Amino acid sequence: MSSTTLDREMLVTFVLRLADDHLVLGHRLSEWCGHAPMLEEDLAMPNMALDLIGQARALYAYAAEIEGRGRTEDDFAYLRREREYLNCLMVERPNGDFAHTMLRQLYFAAFMEPFWKAAATSSDETLAGIAAKAVKEVAYHIRHAGEWVVRLGDGTEESRRRMEAAIESLAPFVDEMFDDDTVTVLAAEAGITPQPSSLRPAFDRIIGPIFAEAGLSFITPPYAQRGGRKGMHGEAMGFLLADLQYMQRTFPGATW
Amino acid sequence: MSSTTLDREMLVTFVLRLADDHLVLGHRLSEWCGHAPMLEEDLAMPNMALDLIGQARALYAYAAEIEGRGRTEDDFAYLRREREYLNCLMVERPNGDFAHTMLRQLYFAAFMEPFWKAAATSSDETLAGIAAKAVKEVAYHIRHAGEWVVRLGDGTEESRRRMEAAIESLAPFVDEMFDDDTVTVLAAEAGITPQPSSLRPAFDRIIGPIFAEAGLSFITPPYAQRGGRKGMHGEAMGFLLADLQYMQRTFPGATW
Repeated sequence: MSSTTLDREMLVTFVLRLADDHLVLGHRLSEWCGHAPMLEEDLAMPNMALDLIGQARALYAYAAEIEGRGRTEDDFAYLRREREYLNCLMVERPNGDFAHTMLRQLYFAAFMEPFWKAAATSSDETLAGIAAKAVKEVAYHIRHAGEWVVRLGDGTEESRRRMEAAIESLAPFVDEMFDDDTVTVLAAEAGITPQPSSLRPAFDRIIGPIFAEAGLSFITPPYAQRGGRKGMHGEAMGFLLADLQYMQRTFPGATW
Repeated sequence: MSSTTLDREMLVTFVLRLADDHLVLGHRLSEWCGHAPMLEEDLAMPNMALDLIGQARALYAYAAEIEGRGRTEDDFAYLRREREYLNCLMVERPNGDFAHTMLRQLYFAAFMEPFWKAAATSSDETLAGIAAKAVKEVAYHIRHAGEWVVRLGDGTEESRRRMEAAIESLAPFVDEMFDDDTVTVLAAEAGITPQPSSLRPAFDRIIGPIFAEAGLSFITPPYAQRGGRKGMHGEAMGFLLADLQYMQRTFPGATW
């Protein structure tokens, strides 16, 4: 990668998008802690949340290093304003019920698995290292969430109704994950990561068999919600950040 | 009232309890803004919220004056920690559905109306002044919320089911409002306000006819939840404060 200021800024943007996806989804999953429908899930969801927040942490630390302006991983995670968060809208969607949470998890994991696989051979060694670890974790997320999508989709009338409602509710947020723009084009040209759009066939190959086994139909909605990558978020995001940032805002610079 | 330090502290505690009740319920009502089931209610609920927050503001300003340590109404409203808020648990209960919100409003207003009526002749002139204004506002809250309790309780099967669920959900939080303790005993002895316990018959005289018209039965639960007056709150309170305090925590000292 080049060392001009412009490219460095773009790389920071690229890494922050990825980090924000993981922090925000990790936070959402952590909201279930102590509220899961069964003990096993009360362990599984926080475990997945820790995977995601661990990945976010590595990415924020890397963004801070590239930026080189003295900001830390905590500054990025806790002290930006809403418009500065660059996560896709999918990950900020409120949890809804358990079916909704599991489907959201499956969608994001099915987007990230081919991403991390490709990033494991990235020209950027730091990202390649993060990817090598993350690819194993995301495979587990797909297996876990996928099993629930099958179990609930092919379950009782009630569980099926809820899973179908989740598919409808999340449908407008799938396409944004695969959007390309200047930042992703430049990252792909530098051999850092694949273009998001190029990951769609792999996503479909993951979702397809799971939906088939569950007897569920994927919905392609007439429109897609977009804006997260540019900091334009839904109503739920501000409330999420109020919770997420509360400790650092209330006790600035607090450490353990 | 006496001017010893102990008494002044108790009076501050007494006024803060009252102020916190109004701020927290006002915040809860304001969460409905833009989400009400009909336009008329999208005006009525924020209007009631403004009444409550206006009362809270007058009370916080008074608490700051009595305390005399340089804290302002904003410090009290936005910059205390959870354990320092002294509101009763009723007002912090999450909104739930519209029936639940209206019943909570009715309960609190039916507690406050006899309180403000008695406080209008308080030996404390500031409180008497606040009470003279508040008593008109709270009468409207009873009328408005009471009409909805009748309409929903005596409405469709679905609306009745929801109102009955609200009665059950809020039942454990009624008794705490009427608890006496050292602070209320001393305030009553000084002729400042009535003992909370003495207001229960008036509360019952308000709720009784409304429930009778709605065909609803009041539930006396086998236990009551307590702790708010000593700063012990439910899980929902921390999340409420994260939202409530976000602006002041993020932009310390911010003004318009």
